[in-house]
Amino acid sequence: MKDAVTTDFEATRARFRLPPGQVYLDGNSLGPLPAGAEAAMRRTLREEWGEMAIGGWNRADWMGLPDTLGDRIARLIGAEAGHVTVGDTLSIRLFQALAAAAAMSDRRVILSDSGNFPSDLYMAQGFVANMKGGFTLRVVEPEAVAESLTEEVAVLMLTQVDYRSGRRHDMAALTAAAQAAGIVTVWDLAHSAGAFEVDLAGAGADFAVGCTYKYLNGGPGAPAFLYVAPRHADRAHTVLNGWLGHAAPFGFEAEYRPAPGVARMRIGTPAIVQMRVLEAALDAWDGVSMADLRARSVALSERFIAGVEARCPGLVLASPRDPGQRGSQVSFRFGEAYATMQALIARGVVGDFRAPDILRFGIAPLYNGEADIDAAVDHLEAVIAGREHLDPAHRARKRVT
Amino acid sequence: MKDAVTTDFEATRARFRLPPGQVYLDGNSLGPLPAGAEAAMRRTLREEWGEMAIGGWNRADWMGLPDTLGDRIARLIGAEAGHVTVGDTLSIRLFQALAAAAAMSDRRVILSDSGNFPSDLYMAQGFVANMKGGFTLRVVEPEAVAESLTEEVAVLMLTQVDYRSGRRHDMAALTAAAQAAGIVTVWDLAHSAGAFEVDLAGAGADFAVGCTYKYLNGGPGAPAFLYVAPRHADRAHTVLNGWLGHAAPFGFEAEYRPAPGVARMRIGTPAIVQMRVLEAALDAWDGVSMADLRARSVALSERFIAGVEARCPGLVLASPRDPGQRGSQVSFRFGEAYATMQALIARGVVGDFRAPDILRFGIAPLYNGEADIDAAVDHLEAVIAGREHLDPAHRARKRVT
Repeated sequence: MKDAVTTDFEATRARFRLPPGQVYLDGNSLGPLPAGAEAAMRRTLREEWGEMAIGGWNRADWMGLPDTLGDRIARLIGAEAGHVTVGDTLSIRLFQALAAAAAMSDRRVILSDSGNFPSDLYMAQGFVANMKGGFTLRVVEPEAVAESLTEEVAVLMLTQVDYRSGRRHDMAALTAAAQAAGIVTVWDLAHSAGAFEVDLAGAGADFAVGCTYKYLNGGPGAPAFLYVAPRHADRAHTVLNGWLGHAAPFGFEAEYRPAPGVARMRIGTPAIVQMRVLEAALDAWDGVSMADLRARSVALSERFIAGVEARCPGLVLASPRDPGQRGSQVSFRFGEAYATMQALIARGVVGDFRAPDILRFGIAPLYNGEADIDAAVDHLEAVIAGREHLDPAHRARKRVT
Repeated sequence: MKDAVTTDFEATRARFRLPPGQVYLDGNSLGPLPAGAEAAMRRTLREEWGEMAIGGWNRADWMGLPDTLGDRIARLIGAEAGHVTVGDTLSIRLFQALAAAAAMSDRRVILSDSGNFPSDLYMAQGFVANMKGGFTLRVVEPEAVAESLTEEVAVLMLTQVDYRSGRRHDMAALTAAAQAAGIVTVWDLAHSAGAFEVDLAGAGADFAVGCTYKYLNGGPGAPAFLYVAPRHADRAHTVLNGWLGHAAPFGFEAEYRPAPGVARMRIGTPAIVQMRVLEAALDAWDGVSMADLRARSVALSERFIAGVEARCPGLVLASPRDPGQRGSQVSFRFGEAYATMQALIARGVVGDFRAPDILRFGIAPLYNGEADIDAAVDHLEAVIAGREHLDPAHRARKRVT
């Protein structure tokens, strides 16, 4: 028997100021404005920075924000409280996790897959080219990851959900297989956190990173997060030795001594303004059951796939058909994908184009509902039927992302 | 004949919301709230993120902010337009500059001094311990830097102004001496940018970094900046290969290819909210002559030193007596420095304590005036005369920074 839905999704939708006149299916690129963000920002500027100035670091506990935000994110990704820190960008966080993971092994191969973000692969390329140790990067197809967990591999570095197709790796199975082969795992949860249930602790993951501007709605340039498993936290190797990761940041000692726990992964001064916006965004998760969220994600995705396949000839599903193998997005291949997305955006339906031929639609159950899905199908059908995607205006427009 | 003062400092003071009831002499730690920040933030949230959502990257030119802000900072530090990028933290920027500078040399020694921020030294320690190349870090006394520019030295990495004493290095002279010895220079301008005239181009500096939350008033956790001399910009080596530093960030290519110019130093997604606050803060510099700023800084500093030396027995000047060798702060040594600063803060005069025995006062001519200086001297005299610094409440309070 299915559990009762306890989450009120009408209420969670009301926690956002959705872009007016839009059917917004791009929350996997940038989540919308949380309703509480403006008030939070006014408080931060007036009552904290304005009135306390430097005193805000203690009196408003700015210094604690990387931890308090980390704990709130921990609940959403199945992490142990006290083991997630917030700050910097996803690229920096990935570099830190990779460096810490690589330092735990005598092996020299970093394994990743072609379904990873190019950005993660760029960071790994910079790592192997510049760091001591003679590491190399090996990139295989997503389907070949399991069979590539060989004894040369030091680190398995994967993004759980493919940003193009929405294909989802089985984190628990791959983590177990990797660890059985003596491999340390680094998971990028950029398209996972806030998209569906994640269980880092249950999977026994070693390190994980993610961003907060997609399904967590933290705003443009919101800070990233980093998880270090409790069993590694007090020993994790650091390279980017910022003063806030020091055991005594205000001792102004001459030599770096890493703090205990995930705090050692702090680097420089935290971006407080951006963190207060993220804090307001995380309020939208109060009372949300991640199981409900997932159920709604699957229902909306299935409805979208059925609608498009029935009414939009020529579009081919690029996401796995099995919902269990998808994140919370649906992608289709189409020969005129770029111009089609431009035509859709002109009609107010906002998704993404990804080269060479992918139409990508993010499903964010916190604020997307059946009406969004149905409207998107209607407009997509109208674009194709009306041959709007062949309009030179849409085909010529400068590529947006 | 002295040039006429063209800057209206009553007007620039009105561009800030100074913390009520405070004489704020801590702008070298965190600048105060700019008057325009709240409106800028409301616009960014409502009209940009709220209405445009993902479209803001192009329509509101979020993507261009690292450059446009970089150009505005360039004017204040004597850099060529188009050669400063904004984003990330000072620690990360220092790491990037150090890596790029080190890659230009066949030598193996990174030279710095004990007047540098511990944080900069920590980052350098992480660099030499982890990067290929067998680099070592050599730290000498500030007075010994010039004589230490030997032929083993690859990079001279200095913070121009000592965060404790306010002692200022002669950037032009040390840069020239270093380059004559075949050494690449990295300058940290954290206590220079917005504090006095800086002339990176005139000095021929190779790389420079700085933060924007001190004299530039960008707010808690405001982004840092990085300067690469035009002659190096298209060749500078990168380690932290983020997608936004790629020549084609939206091409999603498999291999990293650095962008031309300083744009290659971009890493991850820029912190737009924090950048819009910084933008509002930079408005306060419109019409400000840096020569006027410096003249006012020296006049206020001299007034403060004269007042303290006349009326506060026991305090010993820790800053250079020659204004030409100071930044824009004045420090005194005192046996009960920590408790004295606590007693001062309780009276509303906000400066900093720095271990073991330094009272530090930042002078920010954009908003500090003679009345602030005179009030600070009055209160400091009253604390000492009234033995308030011996009050156990002040001595016991938890250390703040």
